[in-house]
Amino acid sequence: MSISTENPVRNGVDTATLFATIDAVKGNNEIAKFRFRASNKWVSGTHNQSTIHSFYGAMQEMTHTSAHVLDADHPAVLVGADNGPTPVEYVLHALAACLTAGIANIAAARNVNLTEVESTVEGNIDLMGILGIGSGVRNGYEQIKVSFKLKGDDPAKLRKVVEQSTARSAVYDIVTNGVPVAIEVEAG
Amino acid sequence: MSISTENPVRNGVDTATLFATIDAVKGNNEIAKFRFRASNKWVSGTHNQSTIHSFYGAMQEMTHTSAHVLDADHPAVLVGADNGPTPVEYVLHALAACLTAGIANIAAARNVNLTEVESTVEGNIDLMGILGIGSGVRNGYEQIKVSFKLKGDDPAKLRKVVEQSTARSAVYDIVTNGVPVAIEVEAG
Repeated sequence: MSISTENPVRNGVDTATLFATIDAVKGNNEIAKFRFRASNKWVSGTHNQSTIHSFYGAMQEMTHTSAHVLDADHPAVLVGADNGPTPVEYVLHALAACLTAGIANIAAARNVNLTEVESTVEGNIDLMGILGIGSGVRNGYEQIKVSFKLKGDDPAKLRKVVEQSTARSAVYDIVTNGVPVAIEVEAG
Repeated sequence: MSISTENPVRNGVDTATLFATIDAVKGNNEIAKFRFRASNKWVSGTHNQSTIHSFYGAMQEMTHTSAHVLDADHPAVLVGADNGPTPVEYVLHALAACLTAGIANIAAARNVNLTEVESTVEGNIDLMGILGIGSGVRNGYEQIKVSFKLKGDDPAKLRKVVEQSTARSAVYDIVTNGVPVAIEVEAG
């Protein structure tokens, strides 16, 4: 494909490998089946810690180059010790990160140059829900707003890239459409 | 309330302050309206970085005691440089963290002692969706499984605590039921 051989790296994206990966998946759909994992350990109060290291993908067990340790906690105003971001803030980060990675990949695949991508994600939540006070108040965010600022090529092209990234974002799909969650407990 | 004065700190949870917070919110519902934020900056390729610092809550602008910086990236098998967890792994961490914080709070409020809470969260995803190959394949997780292991008081009580944490978890609600997301773009 001429796009990839003429300009294999654009926006820091190795487009040749990206297109080769898509071709490999087309040849064998099993390659695309992934299973991601996080292992969490309670520390004290609302403070707990996840380790993210292994995952299954491309038909084999794999690991990240290093294990990532993430702390979560509540701030003092929510009766925590503020040892890390809150769980709901991690969701906002995940959404921004997924859309932004998609923007970089899609722009590169379309020969669109990016020089800057910034975003702010805000989520409104009424804690009456989780505190069990307000009937009819949901536990999670009522709404989330993502504000992107992009610089690079033609603004119209940049807008189209954001649209396509939204249409193909894993976290956008999870957050807007929901996912079935099964919970198992071993106690004692 | 006798629970809080007899044993104000249980499982590392300051139950006196927890009950006082609930009473304060009952007295003025505005206190419970929070807005969380993450600011993200693209670095290169699928690597980007969020900063989590300020939030609005309890009728005022507030900040975490320090700014938290989170890197996200794709691993090499997904054409990234593996500078951090993937966005979808952050979602698994957020879910584990929210349920675990709830378990600690609810156990403390019920006078249930915890000695250990561990969990593994796994999410199955078919990347045919985000690669735009498979028609009818969703972009996000098809399903998520959370496996908890708890030690402490009576196993039946521990199971009830997990049930109540699930019923009051912000991230469980977000992930299972979805949230409306609005995206704004400023380009050029």
